[in-house]
Amino acid sequence: MKSVNIPAIAVQRLTLYARNLALLDQKGMEVVSSAGLADICGVNPAQIRKDLGYFGQFGIRGVGYYVKELAYEIRKILGLEKEWRLALVGVGNLGSALLRHAQFLDQSYTFVAAFERDPKRIGMQVGQITVAPVKALKRLVKDKGVEIGVIAIGPRWAQQVADEFVGAGVRGILNFTPVQLRCPSDLHVENVDFTRMLDMLCYRLTLNQ
Amino acid sequence: MKSVNIPAIAVQRLTLYARNLALLDQKGMEVVSSAGLADICGVNPAQIRKDLGYFGQFGIRGVGYYVKELAYEIRKILGLEKEWRLALVGVGNLGSALLRHAQFLDQSYTFVAAFERDPKRIGMQVGQITVAPVKALKRLVKDKGVEIGVIAIGPRWAQQVADEFVGAGVRGILNFTPVQLRCPSDLHVENVDFTRMLDMLCYRLTLNQ
Repeated sequence: MKSVNIPAIAVQRLTLYARNLALLDQKGMEVVSSAGLADICGVNPAQIRKDLGYFGQFGIRGVGYYVKELAYEIRKILGLEKEWRLALVGVGNLGSALLRHAQFLDQSYTFVAAFERDPKRIGMQVGQITVAPVKALKRLVKDKGVEIGVIAIGPRWAQQVADEFVGAGVRGILNFTPVQLRCPSDLHVENVDFTRMLDMLCYRLTLNQ
Repeated sequence: MKSVNIPAIAVQRLTLYARNLALLDQKGMEVVSSAGLADICGVNPAQIRKDLGYFGQFGIRGVGYYVKELAYEIRKILGLEKEWRLALVGVGNLGSALLRHAQFLDQSYTFVAAFERDPKRIGMQVGQITVAPVKALKRLVKDKGVEIGVIAIGPRWAQQVADEFVGAGVRGILNFTPVQLRCPSDLHVENVDFTRMLDMLCYRLTLNQ
C-alpha cells in the first residue's frame, strides 16, 4: 500500500474495475486495452490510469492490461487476496439470499456463521451453515475468527445487533437496515439500502417528468 | 420542485431523513428536534437545515419538525407520493427477497410483474405475482404501466434484459448485477452491488491493519 490518501471514489472505481476484470477473465479474455476496460466500466481511460496510478504502474503501453494480472493486483490493493470471514444476523429472505449468493462465494467472502432471534429459524440449515441463536453470537464470532458482521434484520433490532457485534470484536459491519448505527469510531460501517437507491432513481424520474 | 440544481449527495441524505422519519413515525413520535433528527441520521443539524432549505421552509423554530409532516414533504420532494410500478427479472434468492421485501411493500414501490429465463421458475407464485417468461416482458411492462425495471439475474444476461426493458419503455433501471449497463442517456440507472460495498469495507480494514 503506497499511501492512505486515496479518494474514496477512486477506491469505489477500483471495485468496479475488479468486478469487470473478473467477468472478462471468466469469458477467457487475456488482454484488455485501457480504452476497452474504460468502455466496459463506463468511465474514461484517463480515469482508469489515474486511479491505478495511486497504487503503482500497471499495464503495458500499446498493449493494455493483462486481465488476470490486473484483477489480481487490484484485489491485492483492496485486501481481497485473503479470506474475509463474515457472520450474518437475520436469515429472512434477504439474509438467505446473501448466504446463498453465488457472487459472495466466488469472491474472498465466506459466511462462517448465521444468527437469528426467531426460534423457528434457529437450527435451520442454509447452504453450509446452521443458523444459531443470537445469544451464541459473541462466542461463535470469536471462535470462528469473524471480522465482518452483516446485519439483515428489521430496523428495530439493528443497533442491538451492532452492539453485539462490536462486543464480540468484529472490525467492520455491512448494514442492510435503514438505521444509522452508532458504533465506535474505529469500526467501519458500510450501509446498503436498496430502497434509498430506488428513492434516488424516482427523484431523478420525477425531475425529468 | 423548486430547482433541479440540487447536489446528488443532498438528495441521498433526504432519502436517509425520509427513512428515519418513517421509523420515528412508526414508533409514535410526533415531533423531533433538528438536533434529534440529525443525531439519528448521523449528520449535523446545520446539514439537515441546509438540505431541506433547497426545497423550502420546514420545521418550527424552537420546536423542531412534525415527524409525519416532514416525512410527507420529503416523500413529495422525492416523488414518492405516487405509486411506482416495478418489474423484476430474475427470481432467484435475491429476486425473491426483493419481491417479498417488507420495506418495498411499505413504501411507494409495487412489483407488478416478475420474469425468468429459467423454465423451472416460470409459473411460480411469489407473493402476489406469477413469474412470467422473459418473452412476455415487453407486453406486460406496457400493459401494467411499469416504469422501473429491476435486474437481479446473473451478469451474463444483464445487458440483454436491460435492452428488453428499454425496448418496453421503462424509464429507470435498478441494477443488482456488477455489469455497467449501456442504456440511452434519458434512461436512469442506479447500481446496487453489495460485494462492492464489502470491497470498500475490506479496503478500509486492510488500511487500518
